[in-house]
Amino acid sequence: MARGEEAMIERIRRSYSAGGAAGENLPAGARLITGIGDDAAVLRPAAGRELVLTCDQFLEGAHFLGNVHPPDAVGYKALARAASDLAAMGARPQVFLLSLALPREKTGRWLDSMARGMARAARELGIALAGGDTSECRRVSMSLTLLGDVRRGTGVLRSGARPGELIFVSGTLGAAQLGLEILRRGLARERRWRPLLRAHLYPRVRLDLGEWLAASRLASAMMDISDGLSTDLARLCAASGVGARIYAAKLPAARVPAELARRGLDPLELALDGGEDYELLFTVPRRLAQRLLAPRVRHALRRVGRVPLTCIGDVTRQRRMVLVDARGRSRALLPRGWDPFRIGHPRI
Amino acid sequence: MARGEEAMIERIRRSYSAGGAAGENLPAGARLITGIGDDAAVLRPAAGRELVLTCDQFLEGAHFLGNVHPPDAVGYKALARAASDLAAMGARPQVFLLSLALPREKTGRWLDSMARGMARAARELGIALAGGDTSECRRVSMSLTLLGDVRRGTGVLRSGARPGELIFVSGTLGAAQLGLEILRRGLARERRWRPLLRAHLYPRVRLDLGEWLAASRLASAMMDISDGLSTDLARLCAASGVGARIYAAKLPAARVPAELARRGLDPLELALDGGEDYELLFTVPRRLAQRLLAPRVRHALRRVGRVPLTCIGDVTRQRRMVLVDARGRSRALLPRGWDPFRIGHPRI
Repeated sequence: MARGEEAMIERIRRSYSAGGAAGENLPAGARLITGIGDDAAVLRPAAGRELVLTCDQFLEGAHFLGNVHPPDAVGYKALARAASDLAAMGARPQVFLLSLALPREKTGRWLDSMARGMARAARELGIALAGGDTSECRRVSMSLTLLGDVRRGTGVLRSGARPGELIFVSGTLGAAQLGLEILRRGLARERRWRPLLRAHLYPRVRLDLGEWLAASRLASAMMDISDGLSTDLARLCAASGVGARIYAAKLPAARVPAELARRGLDPLELALDGGEDYELLFTVPRRLAQRLLAPRVRHALRRVGRVPLTCIGDVTRQRRMVLVDARGRSRALLPRGWDPFRIGHPRI
Repeated sequence: MARGEEAMIERIRRSYSAGGAAGENLPAGARLITGIGDDAAVLRPAAGRELVLTCDQFLEGAHFLGNVHPPDAVGYKALARAASDLAAMGARPQVFLLSLALPREKTGRWLDSMARGMARAARELGIALAGGDTSECRRVSMSLTLLGDVRRGTGVLRSGARPGELIFVSGTLGAAQLGLEILRRGLARERRWRPLLRAHLYPRVRLDLGEWLAASRLASAMMDISDGLSTDLARLCAASGVGARIYAAKLPAARVPAELARRGLDPLELALDGGEDYELLFTVPRRLAQRLLAPRVRHALRRVGRVPLTCIGDVTRQRRMVLVDARGRSRALLPRGWDPFRIGHPRI
């Protein structure tokens, strides 16, 4: 029964046998009873935990370009961005399912390379492949389902921000968009810009940080920045029924080389509206915020990967977003990040 | 913040408010803590249950035709076929996530109608929409994730069939493919053939039967017939390390009107190789099989929807599939059902 679909599944499964991430090495949480090869995966949930479930599409032409993005980055990023949704809840991913539709010409080397990239992300993030399905399509279409868990009652929602709280982000902002712009403008041919592609191609996922912020109950609201700070902050504000004041000078904007800045790549704009950074955006009550700087916490933060945390503003009662520039002048901050259905948005 | 993506999500959410299937009316099992609108859904698993997780893509051009299939049928079927994977494990679906990518011209009426069809399936099947994501794409791409549960240790796998056991199917076989052929050949314009489209457009899912077969421990192996009996039986045999002998005369083949039969639509071929019936294929130890006909069981079967069950053959030690015709002659039964990657397979 060397059928096409079975052959594809076998190619994918093979990528995991080296690292053993196809079901055997699950972290704490749920236990995988039945993995790849049956109609569905069966898991035994751990006591005292809640399940966290998300799915995420990754489509050729919408989220990546078949002839520009290396297949191993496509695989890596597809899983990383889905895992980031769980990080944003403070959850720990356990297993994932992969729905994959490919044109026939991509079922060979392209698939092997994509599957290797995805398996590498799975190993790094400690997630086991538990199943999925395959079919044929003119353009690559992937959908990933992630199931994770979180200690009962500690999952952090978008809706918990209260006026007066401080707004934090992890890492730097705009680096992923900078990488995308380099690709878009055909600059990736120049070797010197290639290191700047990394944040776009292989995003880091803040799993440890998210889990720690949830477990320590420091974050009152949290989400990941996938569509740009300005758009995602607007979503967090809407869910919480609050507004926000952001200080431009405080934003941890990614450094833009002078030559690229001269070509119109503005660090502030990238930091505000650039998508796919997958950093965490979270709010912290003022009295707890000082603990983020306490030695004990800084020690804990070292354990979760020395992620820089930056206070970028505060939550306001008035339901609008304001940007304060370096000279103290305020202007409205509008959501200008990634929205696939907004008219005029530059498609990748 | 009347953004495109939010507007789409709102259109989908609205379809559920009438029937209340968006998170409020969950059956027994898991309890939905956080549904639509956050980074991920949060659920509290029920004690003594195992989780069953599946995902399923439904793609324009591969699984349906944008200009042929009515949008409400696209929505209905996308959810039904995913639920069938859980029925095949004996599990009860609880929640689903919808990943949806649409071309802009389908974000209005088409989306409304599709969402209504899906909401109807959700109500009938008792499944709550718990989240998802949307994006833009040239052709419709959907991926559904279903999470359900099953009493600990009772999930039925494909791998449990043993030599000597009897092979059963539910319902009739070939009806869905017959409907597809009517569509393909442009016959749906004739009113008289339209009732025959039903099995193709709005497949029934054997949730109650699957759950009962699992709970009663009558089925030793089970799967749903999505790609045609000949292909799916081959998969069950491979997973169990056995073979099968099928009696052509016993197959519950869908009736084909004489006029369509004259056009080359053969009931036996449709029953063996036709896809998308979503009936259950299962094996039963001989000593238990008699119980399937006992009055008490027939009473239970009435409760699970008066589904006809037919014994179509038996499991053999020799690892090959054999078809016995009405005159007792045997020939090899080859998997000729739906495989999207098999060369020469007629694409829809």
